[in-house]
Amino acid sequence: MTDRYAQTPLTRVRRIAQRADYDRATVHAILDAGWACHVAFAVDGQPHCIPTAHWRIGETLYIHGSNGSRLLRALGDGAPASVCVTHVDGLVLARSAFHHSINYRSAMVYGRFEPVGEDEKRQALDAFMDKVEPGRRAKVRGPDASEFAATTVLALEIEQAVAKVRSGPPKDDEADLGIAVWAGVRPIETRFGEPIPDLAPAAA
Amino acid sequence: MTDRYAQTPLTRVRRIAQRADYDRATVHAILDAGWACHVAFAVDGQPHCIPTAHWRIGETLYIHGSNGSRLLRALGDGAPASVCVTHVDGLVLARSAFHHSINYRSAMVYGRFEPVGEDEKRQALDAFMDKVEPGRRAKVRGPDASEFAATTVLALEIEQAVAKVRSGPPKDDEADLGIAVWAGVRPIETRFGEPIPDLAPAAA
Repeated sequence: MTDRYAQTPLTRVRRIAQRADYDRATVHAILDAGWACHVAFAVDGQPHCIPTAHWRIGETLYIHGSNGSRLLRALGDGAPASVCVTHVDGLVLARSAFHHSINYRSAMVYGRFEPVGEDEKRQALDAFMDKVEPGRRAKVRGPDASEFAATTVLALEIEQAVAKVRSGPPKDDEADLGIAVWAGVRPIETRFGEPIPDLAPAAA
Repeated sequence: MTDRYAQTPLTRVRRIAQRADYDRATVHAILDAGWACHVAFAVDGQPHCIPTAHWRIGETLYIHGSNGSRLLRALGDGAPASVCVTHVDGLVLARSAFHHSINYRSAMVYGRFEPVGEDEKRQALDAFMDKVEPGRRAKVRGPDASEFAATTVLALEIEQAVAKVRSGPPKDDEADLGIAVWAGVRPIETRFGEPIPDLAPAAA
């Protein structure tokens, strides 16, 4: 396996192509840094864009949900899907309106989801819990048979993927550099806040 | 106009329907709190999920980009689209694996984009700059004729939309409340960091 995804007609970035990055490590890092992806799929020509939690093991992207979920039923049938994870990292404030931009990292994956069997489902759900909080799995009650059976896990093999990243300062025209306006980047940061303990009665 | 969007077959939430909210104010607030949406559309049956900046005036959702953009050309032809803005607000850590969840706010809009004329384009781009930083528009160089002509703005009238929101603590089974594991919410916060001034030469 090479370090990069092959460029395909679906993943060839045409617009500002220098922002494209086919490195597996870049795509993986963007996917892993997100808690939710958006999945695009079409049913009878009508596109849907649905947010859902995702996680990854190697080159397999997982999503999950209740067996009855419309998303999972539509995707489990092997419909072509497009998955995107995007992080907005900052507002890029230029000296001209035209050169304003947004700093971001996005990873786009094309492929088809498939339902996984029992063993892979267990491994995948374990991996999801490890993403949520390493070590937590040993402390909580694991899924009982009916909870396990009620959950569908879908897997997509990541073969067609590309990252697109913009970072850094604005790129103003030289003639505009003297304009008296603050220019630069207002970073957007995402972080965990103070944990809020559950006050359910018996837990006190 | 009522305060709520009508529920339609496309926007009827089936899964955990009590999380659905058709209030215009709720949908607007979720859209406005985001800098980028994901747009799903299909070309020859192949779905695409593309992130792009968005903004809103009243019941009109706008996106924009370079005239040549594949996204804008595909959508400008009036293809059905699904737009989603999602904010991940926290990890919900329960006492059982099954009841782990994510707190989020998402707004989903179904409709078709149309290119706007010159006057609306100017108003829309002004509104976008006002969203980026109120008052900034008066200080930067506005678009010249060729920049203005090179930009396409698409508008979607928001008629079919729904918000879906989860908030609050985990909902454990009563039998699990005594399990000795920390349970609660780890909030995820998004905020502006310290501004980074551009150090382009002539600006010094």
